[in-house]
Amino acid sequence: MALIVQKFGGTSVGDVDRIRNVARRVVACQEEGHQVVVCVSAMAGETNSLDALARAICDDASPEPREFDALVSTGEQKTIALLAMAIQQMGHPARSFTGAQMGMETDSSHTRARILSIDTDRLRSFLERGFVCVIAGFQGVDAEGSITTLGRGGSDTSAVAVAAALGADVCEIYTDVDGVYTADPRVAEDARKLSKISFEEMLELASLGAKVLQTRSVKFAMRYGVPIHVRSSFVSDEGTWIVPEEDVMERLVVSGVTCNANEAKIRVGHVPDQPGIAARLFTPLGEAGIVVDMIVQNFASDGTTDMTFTVPRADYRRALEIAERVGGELNSASVEGDDSIAKVSIVGLGMKDHAGVATKMFDVLARENINIQMISTSEIKISVVIDEAFADGAVKALHEALVRESA
Amino acid sequence: MALIVQKFGGTSVGDVDRIRNVARRVVACQEEGHQVVVCVSAMAGETNSLDALARAICDDASPEPREFDALVSTGEQKTIALLAMAIQQMGHPARSFTGAQMGMETDSSHTRARILSIDTDRLRSFLERGFVCVIAGFQGVDAEGSITTLGRGGSDTSAVAVAAALGADVCEIYTDVDGVYTADPRVAEDARKLSKISFEEMLELASLGAKVLQTRSVKFAMRYGVPIHVRSSFVSDEGTWIVPEEDVMERLVVSGVTCNANEAKIRVGHVPDQPGIAARLFTPLGEAGIVVDMIVQNFASDGTTDMTFTVPRADYRRALEIAERVGGELNSASVEGDDSIAKVSIVGLGMKDHAGVATKMFDVLARENINIQMISTSEIKISVVIDEAFADGAVKALHEALVRESA
Repeated sequence: MALIVQKFGGTSVGDVDRIRNVARRVVACQEEGHQVVVCVSAMAGETNSLDALARAICDDASPEPREFDALVSTGEQKTIALLAMAIQQMGHPARSFTGAQMGMETDSSHTRARILSIDTDRLRSFLERGFVCVIAGFQGVDAEGSITTLGRGGSDTSAVAVAAALGADVCEIYTDVDGVYTADPRVAEDARKLSKISFEEMLELASLGAKVLQTRSVKFAMRYGVPIHVRSSFVSDEGTWIVPEEDVMERLVVSGVTCNANEAKIRVGHVPDQPGIAARLFTPLGEAGIVVDMIVQNFASDGTTDMTFTVPRADYRRALEIAERVGGELNSASVEGDDSIAKVSIVGLGMKDHAGVATKMFDVLARENINIQMISTSEIKISVVIDEAFADGAVKALHEALVRESA
Repeated sequence: MALIVQKFGGTSVGDVDRIRNVARRVVACQEEGHQVVVCVSAMAGETNSLDALARAICDDASPEPREFDALVSTGEQKTIALLAMAIQQMGHPARSFTGAQMGMETDSSHTRARILSIDTDRLRSFLERGFVCVIAGFQGVDAEGSITTLGRGGSDTSAVAVAAALGADVCEIYTDVDGVYTADPRVAEDARKLSKISFEEMLELASLGAKVLQTRSVKFAMRYGVPIHVRSSFVSDEGTWIVPEEDVMERLVVSGVTCNANEAKIRVGHVPDQPGIAARLFTPLGEAGIVVDMIVQNFASDGTTDMTFTVPRADYRRALEIAERVGGELNSASVEGDDSIAKVSIVGLGMKDHAGVATKMFDVLARENINIQMISTSEIKISVVIDEAFADGAVKALHEALVRESA
């Protein structure tokens, strides 16, 4: 008997029939002898329609975050009650839990709250009595009793956090793809599904653009050692297991190629190469809530330096304005930007032990006549910034040369 | 400065514009220097659509009551968040409270819970800091933390209960009529709005078919001495105050005529006149959840007795079956029923001191050639059961002869 946390997103619970399908999967799992906690999102479209109501009430101004959370949290509450009913209809005891009811305590940062603790006694007592526990993803409660929400990817995080708190054997994330692929199959036709991947690799893949899981939930799973099984809501085949590094038997040198075309780059050229320059530039960006991703600094022989960095494309205009202002103060000879770039990355645990992967990557791109604008590396990944127009070609070539070869 | 609880029903908060209207009324009241608690229902149509979802999930079987409450309670939660936002948009601090958040503790009888206690400290602390408290009607929380609902007329009851617990100066019930009338103005054209009426009279009127307020909320107000002001959501004129008997200055002998055409009568004829007959008959009806209203017993000279009673028309068929079964066991000579009856009642505090009101009522009906089938009286009301076809005529004639005359 295992303790299994299953998470279904909004599309999987989008209407009455789909909720019944989820109920059937849950019941089947319980009938195999497992204890089941099922974590669900709001029905597809629900959160958007609540959001639209809030905007209408507020004349398109931002609604007060506490009340916004009280409003949108009704979405998951609806789903948990309906799913619990559907499971009960199939003759299995089930009980729904809102964030507050399951003791998902968070801080008071409404709309992007952080989980502080989970009181698992109630869930455990119902599991022991044979109930399926149906829990609301995305939401929690603060010390004052106000409803909070966890922000983007919150439901994945809820599921992983509950799995961690309960010491579950696995957290199954059901989604509309059937696992994690070595590259986007729409771009690289020979991309294949990975049966296992390490937390570290998944974290790089997630933050580099693979959309299957939110970075935050992977971090949580890694920290608490909760195995994640990403699998399809629609077929029963195994998907991809995300596990600690030591449990990945088949280590690929490169296990995935990803592409992120949602960034823009900004270059502040020819500024005096002296201490404090980086702080002068990046402090106001941070204060404006702009998250800087890659940073590359080159120095020139004339004692000046070039600072290039990337930001989310949505923040490009604001970031450029700030860079121009600071660049002026620093006597920069030129501040320029480009929002038609793509960041292509290769990720693999095996890169730690294999020298020469970087060289191979640069070779492949050179052969394809693709110019590299920026490079950034970590122990298990290499990212390059290139012209957006060449992104698909780069992914394809890198996948063929590095992933297929190492498989 | 007064402490005012305002209650708005589903129609008053049916869309974004109406929610804004409510916000304006609330803000105006606060600007007059009052502390305001506003209690709201789900947006019109919301509860029905949630109910339909539950039925779809359950293949038209009854959903499990705890989960049903978890589901439908999202309706009011949506409204409180939206109304709080609308008030905040107008520059006034506001805060929403679910049943659980305001400490509305109930028993665990899901879908028809009874209020046990209200922890008013939180509401009070926010009122003192200048907040409008926006509370969810209809819902509470049990000792286990499960969401409960109060059943029919629950939002009126929530508002009155909170007003009682806070010691509010008045509980204003906003509705689509502008007060309590001496009769239904669609039937008796000269019906007039009462400016004041006693709890006792209102209680009789409410249970006799006047739809403006639910019996349960009036009982609550009477027990705790909370003045209720029933008024229109759409105009700002004063409506009708419902107050303790001693505060009603102008005592009408008869203050209202009502009609209830939602009952049916059943007669069990010629049963042996011996102890235990009533119990034999009414126990199985009670066990079937059928609420018996009027009961009249006559005895005949042959030592048998006739038992006639009324039940809600919706329960007529089931009640008749039970009566036929029990009648058979009791050797009744005949069991018969009629579901085309109306109960017409006159209500008035002044009847206590005025003999002869009953005689006058019977006279009026005789003059109209209306046959009386059953009679039931209390200290402040007389009800008669007549053929449904004569209901409007009876109301008209009684209103003209008894209410207008005594005014």
